[in-house]
Amino acid sequence: MSIAETGEFGLIARIVARLEAGPAALLGPGDDGAVVAAPDGRIVASTDVLVEGRHFRRDWSGAADIGHRAAAANLADIAAMGAAPTALLVALCIPPDLDVSWAEELAGGLSEEAALVGASVVGGDMSASPTLTVAVTALGDLQGQEPVLRSGAQPGDVIGLAGRTGYAAAGYTVLSRGFRTPKMLVEAYRRPQVPYQQGTAAARHGATAMIDVSDGLLQDLGHIATASVVGIDVRSDAFEIPQQMRDAATALGVDPNQWILAGGDDHALAATFPPGVALPPGWRQIGTVHEGTGVTVDRKQWSGALGWDHFR
Amino acid sequence: MSIAETGEFGLIARIVARLEAGPAALLGPGDDGAVVAAPDGRIVASTDVLVEGRHFRRDWSGAADIGHRAAAANLADIAAMGAAPTALLVALCIPPDLDVSWAEELAGGLSEEAALVGASVVGGDMSASPTLTVAVTALGDLQGQEPVLRSGAQPGDVIGLAGRTGYAAAGYTVLSRGFRTPKMLVEAYRRPQVPYQQGTAAARHGATAMIDVSDGLLQDLGHIATASVVGIDVRSDAFEIPQQMRDAATALGVDPNQWILAGGDDHALAATFPPGVALPPGWRQIGTVHEGTGVTVDRKQWSGALGWDHFR
Repeated sequence: MSIAETGEFGLIARIVARLEAGPAALLGPGDDGAVVAAPDGRIVASTDVLVEGRHFRRDWSGAADIGHRAAAANLADIAAMGAAPTALLVALCIPPDLDVSWAEELAGGLSEEAALVGASVVGGDMSASPTLTVAVTALGDLQGQEPVLRSGAQPGDVIGLAGRTGYAAAGYTVLSRGFRTPKMLVEAYRRPQVPYQQGTAAARHGATAMIDVSDGLLQDLGHIATASVVGIDVRSDAFEIPQQMRDAATALGVDPNQWILAGGDDHALAATFPPGVALPPGWRQIGTVHEGTGVTVDRKQWSGALGWDHFR
Repeated sequence: MSIAETGEFGLIARIVARLEAGPAALLGPGDDGAVVAAPDGRIVASTDVLVEGRHFRRDWSGAADIGHRAAAANLADIAAMGAAPTALLVALCIPPDLDVSWAEELAGGLSEEAALVGASVVGGDMSASPTLTVAVTALGDLQGQEPVLRSGAQPGDVIGLAGRTGYAAAGYTVLSRGFRTPKMLVEAYRRPQVPYQQGTAAARHGATAMIDVSDGLLQDLGHIATASVVGIDVRSDAFEIPQQMRDAATALGVDPNQWILAGGDDHALAATFPPGVALPPGWRQIGTVHEGTGVTVDRKQWSGALGWDHFR
């Protein structure tokens, strides 16, 4: 059945039926606003939008995959502040001829990904649109910790990374060349594996700065470098390139380091820690902070693109 | 200069320059997430999306107007829960050939409308898209009051209205027939005058249910009737139809009561109050709650449309 046939309120009812309420959802969908617990007395909030043709393709990802990815992109931003995600709100713009099941599966994916961190979809809005668009806002609780900003890195700090980079970009390249395998890379593109718990862990371990790697590691570390007025050097030998990625890179004529260092969408967390601090479990050192500006790789400027610009 | 020329980060910098920080913005735009004060320990959150061609037209409204309207639609939802708005987050999807000044003026409008209630734009996201889309999430603080839901109306309650209805719908009809006057109606469509303060006032006066009139008074009262399992009767003589609206209705061959009772986008607040309670200043009685179901006008079924469905 098409969405034009169910109508706005019919569609909302079907979507709400797919959602599970989390513990912070004091009042879920169905009223003018949701009510979400904010025990810390401060709330962290972040918005990320995915647009069909730019952030996803329906022939590359199922609706549930896109739901997982839209939720992950937002939940990772909350984690990167050192906060625990509590709730999502979703604005869905959707062509009226799309089948209702697509929207239901999207909602299922959003809800499942949120449940990984104990959060839930508490509200949203829907409109017809010629361009399928999913805008998500995530909320999170600081649990008494100070937020970890991009601006706190100090010369001498070490750079830690939790989670993986390059996998989603490799999967994207594979799909864009018309292939569907290796499955490991394609699945990594479809559903990122985000190290959510490492965000609050890093905050508790004294991380001085943190960011979610969404556009590319070098570009995103560049945001820390700029905000903290420091230079950052990444060691290329800190990254393990799995054999399947190496093989795919060879077959496709790509430098796999370009994926690892500048590929987006895996939503790893990058953070800086004071020297001498043992990194929390799940974090590994990938570089150092020094006086200066900009981001280098093995002390040299990186020759490729640093990441992704959503208007170019 | 087009947005494709400034790029994502250049555009963000220009937009952020247009924003004023409000008192609840503990950390504004520029990091992975914003930090917003939530002194009540609970937060009210709501999302509303506007899509070009469906919710606005660039030849009918300036960018600042659209910013005001997008903010108003969301802030009104917060007010309708009895909460005080604190912050907005904005996802903007924008054709890359659009001039940068358009996005800057939109941001100015959003920021100005938020400032009316002491709130501010604390974050957002941007993407290129063929369809200009503005998705806004508003946050608010309950200030120790219980949220006013749609489900609390009781038989015997009186229905109160704060703000006006029909003005925006009349302005919309005027514009859709190719006219630009009467200015009062066209301006009402472009920039709704929302009785924000009446939301928290109603909560303090013991309102039993409340809703923001965004789709049409009868349809929105229908949501209260359904959620509260009551019937609602509206008195048509409770509404003053201004002479300019009467004249426009005659000239366009429209029943002005259709605008008043079923027109959306003015963002009046409708609430139910226990019998015998004096309505707070700014509120007037427009009907009563009784045992039963559905919404009637002068005890009869309304013959026209009750409101607006965003997929039909």
